Amino acid sequence: MAVAGPEPGGALDRLIQLLSRLPGLGPRSARRVALHLLARREALMAPLAAAMAETLDKVRPCSVCGNLDTADPCAICRDGTRDPAILCVVEDVGDLWAVERSGAFRGRYHVLGGHLSAIAGVGPDDLHIGQLVARLGDGAVSEIVLALNATVEGQTTAHYVAGLIAPFGIAITRLAHGVPVGGELDYLDDGTLAAALRARRPAEA
Amino acid sequence: MAVAGPEPGGALDRLIQLLSRLPGLGPRSARRVALHLLARREALMAPLAAAMAETLDKVRPCSVCGNLDTADPCAICRDGTRDPAILCVVEDVGDLWAVERSGAFRGRYHVLGGHLSAIAGVGPDDLHIGQLVARLGDGAVSEIVLALNATVEGQTTAHYVAGLIAPFGIAITRLAHGVPVGGELDYLDDGTLAAALRARRPAEA
Repeated sequence: MAVAGPEPGGALDRLIQLLSRLPGLGPRSARRVALHLLARREALMAPLAAAMAETLDKVRPCSVCGNLDTADPCAICRDGTRDPAILCVVEDVGDLWAVERSGAFRGRYHVLGGHLSAIAGVGPDDLHIGQLVARLGDGAVSEIVLALNATVEGQTTAHYVAGLIAPFGIAITRLAHGVPVGGELDYLDDGTLAAALRARRPAEA
Repeated sequence: MAVAGPEPGGALDRLIQLLSRLPGLGPRSARRVALHLLARREALMAPLAAAMAETLDKVRPCSVCGNLDTADPCAICRDGTRDPAILCVVEDVGDLWAVERSGAFRGRYHVLGGHLSAIAGVGPDDLHIGQLVARLGDGAVSEIVLALNATVEGQTTAHYVAGLIAPFGIAITRLAHGVPVGGELDYLDDGTLAAALRARRPAEA
């Protein structure tokens, strides 16, 4: 069954085919997005095409940390007010953005570009682990925060990275487990609740 | 709260803001789409930017029927094998595509561009109703299929259009109501089941 009605292989059909490959979109929603765009040519489609072309042209991974930016080194690596002694290691740029949104970290980052995965065939050489080790060579970094996902792959990767970094004698920390702020205990998985219990702290009076 | 982490107002931030205005995407999924694109620059992002620019440049509403195509009149209006005596009236191009996918219609189309809506302030002059009436002037059309949505607005629009067309003495038909093919009665709304009962037909032996 063709994705669109008219003119298979035409410009509009090709646009829909490509849109349907975006995460969260299928053939039906890709058609809806294409029509939505064509109904808003000047207000949305033209600016979006321009923003996509500009991003494609200008946004590159930072050669230092792997963040995405129009400048290299990126704005975070160039920011003199940020502490160069603390590196936060994340799996991807989406995680970097999440840590930034928390507003609780004022150090710098290192983006691994994924996690180790035997199933997907991702080994240490496929991630930016060598670059991380290289950044530690000048002794300017005193703490590494391993902010990897609390998944099997994320924690396997964290363990591997921690093993590589250990010889440098740098403090290695990880994110605390616990009850999400605003979270209800009844909806929490048992492992998180157990971790939160073990890490219990004196209540503020 | 900023949509992305770094560089508010930059190319990537602007791309995410625009993506978040697409139907079905919010700030979070727009970020995911942007990262997905940047991880597939050559395989997906460059072709998508090109397809969007090409669609923006070349795809226009057909001046005859309102279909979207790179040619004007569109491929359907130019197709000599299609019956010019039957016009299928639809609300928008997505509905035209849906009828095309059914494979059951070999006439031509007229896209109204929406439906009448007192709440949204859409009157007859905001739809391509005048153009529809104009197309009937030469007497070449012998049947109008009102394939409008089975919603209050769609049926109000169908009623209005039927009233305007009546003086031409052309056959006016609408889509049959009934049980969707593959549908289960227990999940069907009462109105549809009642319509299917009233329109019951002799069973094939």
